[in-house]
Amino acid sequence: MTASERLAALGIVLPGVAVPVGTYVPAKRHGDLVYSSGQLPLVDGALLATGTVGQRIDDVTPEQAMECARAAALNALAAIAIAAGGIDQIAAIVRLTGYVASSPGFTAQPAVINGASALFVDIFGAEGGHARSAVGVSALPLGAPVEIDVIAALRT
Amino acid sequence: MTASERLAALGIVLPGVAVPVGTYVPAKRHGDLVYSSGQLPLVDGALLATGTVGQRIDDVTPEQAMECARAAALNALAAIAIAAGGIDQIAAIVRLTGYVASSPGFTAQPAVINGASALFVDIFGAEGGHARSAVGVSALPLGAPVEIDVIAALRT
Amino acid sequence: MTASERLAALGIVLPGVAVPVGTYVPAKRHGDLVYSSGQLPLVDGALLATGTVGQRIDDVTPEQAMECARAAALNALAAIAIAAGGIDQIAAIVRLTGYVASSPGFTAQPAVINGASALFVDIFGAEGGHARSAVGVSALPLGAPVEIDVIAALRT
Repeated sequence: MTASERLAALGIVLPGVAVPVGTYVPAKRHGDLVYSSGQLPLVDGALLATGTVGQRIDDVTPEQAMECARAAALNALAAIAIAAGGIDQIAAIVRLTGYVASSPGFTAQPAVINGASALFVDIFGAEGGHARSAVGVSALPLGAPVEIDVIAALRT
Repeated sequence: MTASERLAALGIVLPGVAVPVGTYVPAKRHGDLVYSSGQLPLVDGALLATGTVGQRIDDVTPEQAMECARAAALNALAAIAIAAGGIDQIAAIVRLTGYVASSPGFTAQPAVINGASALFVDIFGAEGGHARSAVGVSALPLGAPVEIDVIAALRT
Repeated sequence: MTASERLAALGIVLPGVAVPVGTYVPAKRHGDLVYSSGQLPLVDGALLATGTVGQRIDDVTPEQAMECARAAALNALAAIAIAAGGIDQIAAIVRLTGYVASSPGFTAQPAVINGASALFVDIFGAEGGHARSAVGVSALPLGAPVEIDVIAALRT
């Protein structure tokens, strides 16, 4: 199955790409790599959640944050697909960095970022397996709980 | 106009490159890419500002932080230019990560990092447009409010 | 001396590679680069220390954190060596990002990450010199004080 066929089988529609808030681009191609900009969990222009992730009463829960990670990863994929000339031009996912806005004491960043990693394996199979870093940060743009950036390799 | 001509037209002089505080290098070339180390807003050896960025009385203001981002980006460019054999060997800016030491509740990291992004577009035009991530962190080396790292592509 | 000879001379044994906590891989090769995942200071499956780094009574000390950085770097090297087909296939270290879980006011991240940088120069000599960023973050997976990710270049 191609990536676009897997997307269809999974019932996933690639979202539109948010206009960058500044003088940068959603994704940049160099050689056979495409680098995405850091992507937020925006769905139809609104963040799925805002705040820091943790166990406090007002926190975004780890489960919500995992959904946010998946949504941000889908936005990264959409940006890469445009720069690549279509999702079926993507050969592999190389690298992913996942930033989690974390409440004091919250250290389950990997579980949150699994929401992003799993999306790529769902769509690309073994080629979707990637190197990744998951880190906890103090704050993210617009108050987003998660930001994801990705490097993908293109078919040559 | 070449990049060096644009620099001259903008009245920008590439600064000297700070000696790394450790066993690493200011920028490393591999193939037709140059990776800069994370650069701080050092001007003539002193930080333009120190502290976290936000709206509190003692904070670095977002406007000051944007100037810091531009200064750090210029330092990254200077480091890359040396590794590249001159600024006119740079074909494009591929990727930029902007770390902003952020006070609690400060989420305008993109506006801060626009100070870095704009510099590259000023100098390289459309080829200066890059993928980027902007994140808020708890602290940066020497108390710097901003740190910038860059990947640039060389002419081949 | 080859890298494996230097390892032996230094009395360093490459550790086993921790199983990723999610759907990603310890290191991913693309072309002549290998990207490691973010690695923690795990030794025999246990973190060398947990908590944030700083000068407070309960903090991980900068000296302990430097040891953690070296251990995490060794784990990154082990992951890269497997993806590369052996440590002697590594031609150079290109880039390193060092995340330090930092207590408020702690800004000596570069000294901590020197523990990682020095390891690569010990093993690879001048080719081990790399671009790097060192940043302070609020929290890291499992409460680790340090996380390191690395890009290495392979012999071609």
